[in-house]
Amino acid sequence: MSVTVVGSIAFDAVKTPFGERERMLGGAAVHFALAASFFDEVRVVGPVGDDFGDAELDVLRRRGVDVSDVEHVAGGETFFWAGEYGWDLNSRETLETRLGVFEHFEPKLSLAARESEVLFLANIQPDLQRAVRAQCTGARFAALDSMNLWIEIARESLVQTIGTVDCLVLNDAELRQLTGRPNTLSAAREVLGWGPPGPASIIAKQGEYGAALITSDGYFSLPAFPLETVVDPTGAGDTFAGGFVGYIAAHDSDALDNGLLRRAMAYGTALASFNVEEFGTERVARLTGEEIAERVRELERVTHFNDAPIALRG
Amino acid sequence: MSVTVVGSIAFDAVKTPFGERERMLGGAAVHFALAASFFDEVRVVGPVGDDFGDAELDVLRRRGVDVSDVEHVAGGETFFWAGEYGWDLNSRETLETRLGVFEHFEPKLSLAARESEVLFLANIQPDLQRAVRAQCTGARFAALDSMNLWIEIARESLVQTIGTVDCLVLNDAELRQLTGRPNTLSAAREVLGWGPPGPASIIAKQGEYGAALITSDGYFSLPAFPLETVVDPTGAGDTFAGGFVGYIAAHDSDALDNGLLRRAMAYGTALASFNVEEFGTERVARLTGEEIAERVRELERVTHFNDAPIALRG
Repeated sequence: MSVTVVGSIAFDAVKTPFGERERMLGGAAVHFALAASFFDEVRVVGPVGDDFGDAELDVLRRRGVDVSDVEHVAGGETFFWAGEYGWDLNSRETLETRLGVFEHFEPKLSLAARESEVLFLANIQPDLQRAVRAQCTGARFAALDSMNLWIEIARESLVQTIGTVDCLVLNDAELRQLTGRPNTLSAAREVLGWGPPGPASIIAKQGEYGAALITSDGYFSLPAFPLETVVDPTGAGDTFAGGFVGYIAAHDSDALDNGLLRRAMAYGTALASFNVEEFGTERVARLTGEEIAERVRELERVTHFNDAPIALRG
Repeated sequence: MSVTVVGSIAFDAVKTPFGERERMLGGAAVHFALAASFFDEVRVVGPVGDDFGDAELDVLRRRGVDVSDVEHVAGGETFFWAGEYGWDLNSRETLETRLGVFEHFEPKLSLAARESEVLFLANIQPDLQRAVRAQCTGARFAALDSMNLWIEIARESLVQTIGTVDCLVLNDAELRQLTGRPNTLSAAREVLGWGPPGPASIIAKQGEYGAALITSDGYFSLPAFPLETVVDPTGAGDTFAGGFVGYIAAHDSDALDNGLLRRAMAYGTALASFNVEEFGTERVARLTGEEIAERVRELERVTHFNDAPIALRG
């Protein structure tokens, strides 16, 4: 079994109230791949420029990620993003974006990538996502992420692309924007009807509050792992997706039920909690499986309650 | 056993994208009392003007709430608030506030109120909250709510008042503002140290996302009950508090442990979910105990997951 992720590979400059990094490894595909690497073989498809070297690739290689589909564009510059977060990390401002080689990215999938059993389409232009999805005819599970920009300028294409995947992972505000429905649950249920055959599960990411899973016959909500120290939220959503999709990839198709999706959410949530404790990929790059498992157990404890009989008045 | 709540009794004018009410019963003490009435005897302490009549009192009386401590100020006008919510109900604008009899409110507690075993200090000026707390010497459990205004203009008094209660219920952003700490968990843990003897539990309300409970030896997070239709969020926080505190009041002191606090959160969450489905008190006023119990059971189902063994790579 293996997972292929298609998306951005980047250098990020990030400033938060707790420190800054002028240039560090980032990008949706990178964060996703590191998280998913705890569960299965992972292959990254994405473009880099001349400024991207072995030091960066080694961060992925050390986690066993297959980087043979990373495309080096000679003479190009790697995608660069600079941003600054507000005091409680709930707002952020983009200071600079240089698309570089990402601007004219056309995903080229190797035979091995096309034969992946599980596919994650990180946030790129939805036409490209659909083209990739069409090439991976054998994928038994495909998920995609997107963003407000594509809802604004390429909504029709995005809707069409969503119809071709099994799972949509999106911020809750973006789900509302996408559907024009003011209620997240109602928005998610509408998207479940977008075929053919359309996604069987929707994940509404809720930032620091966690995430909700909506399927045709179920609902599940999981808070974020409680942390006293959050240093850099960049990549948290992609790290969550990597844990979630990776967990699914590590199990057979016939095990895919609501119980498995819920556990996948817990692993995604645990992974994301490590990601935000340090800058960029720093924490996840040196993470261990035992640390992840311990946080999943803790997450079970902090979300559990048992009702007890009580006589209510009225 | 009995619960006393001290706070505002009001008329609200509310406009949401789903309708509007020009003048309806509201106020923190009213929302709290209706919710708590499902668990125990409840007594309301708060001022009303000449415009407040039997029709309004009957909404409380029908739920068995004792209104003998509602103070009628002759010649006065009842507190009036008008507000309008944005399209997804996550923002609201105050259009008008007329304090009326609430401006010079000095709580006068009857002997029965002073002898209540459980006390809720809804959001009023913190000096007044502390004066009430001092009169209720026998209360075995006291909780308080507050707001950004008092953090801004009466922080020292609020901090002192918090030191006299067992539980602080506050929006998460207000907890961060109160402590100057950018992280909610860290902010809550700081407040646990504010004595003497200081609160043993802090509830961080998270609006549409639910609430978290922080104690010295535990953490619990509970999402909001999933709803496709939310009509009017006004009073949701006070309704939550009414369910939470009411549940605690219905149990002996020696049963008060983390398990009971978690169940109390679940009942508060269920009550709040009914409150927001219609305007003002409309839904909770005709609610049944069985409906509440059913939502608590459903909340258990939508938050539950079980970890399973998995071999992680690394």
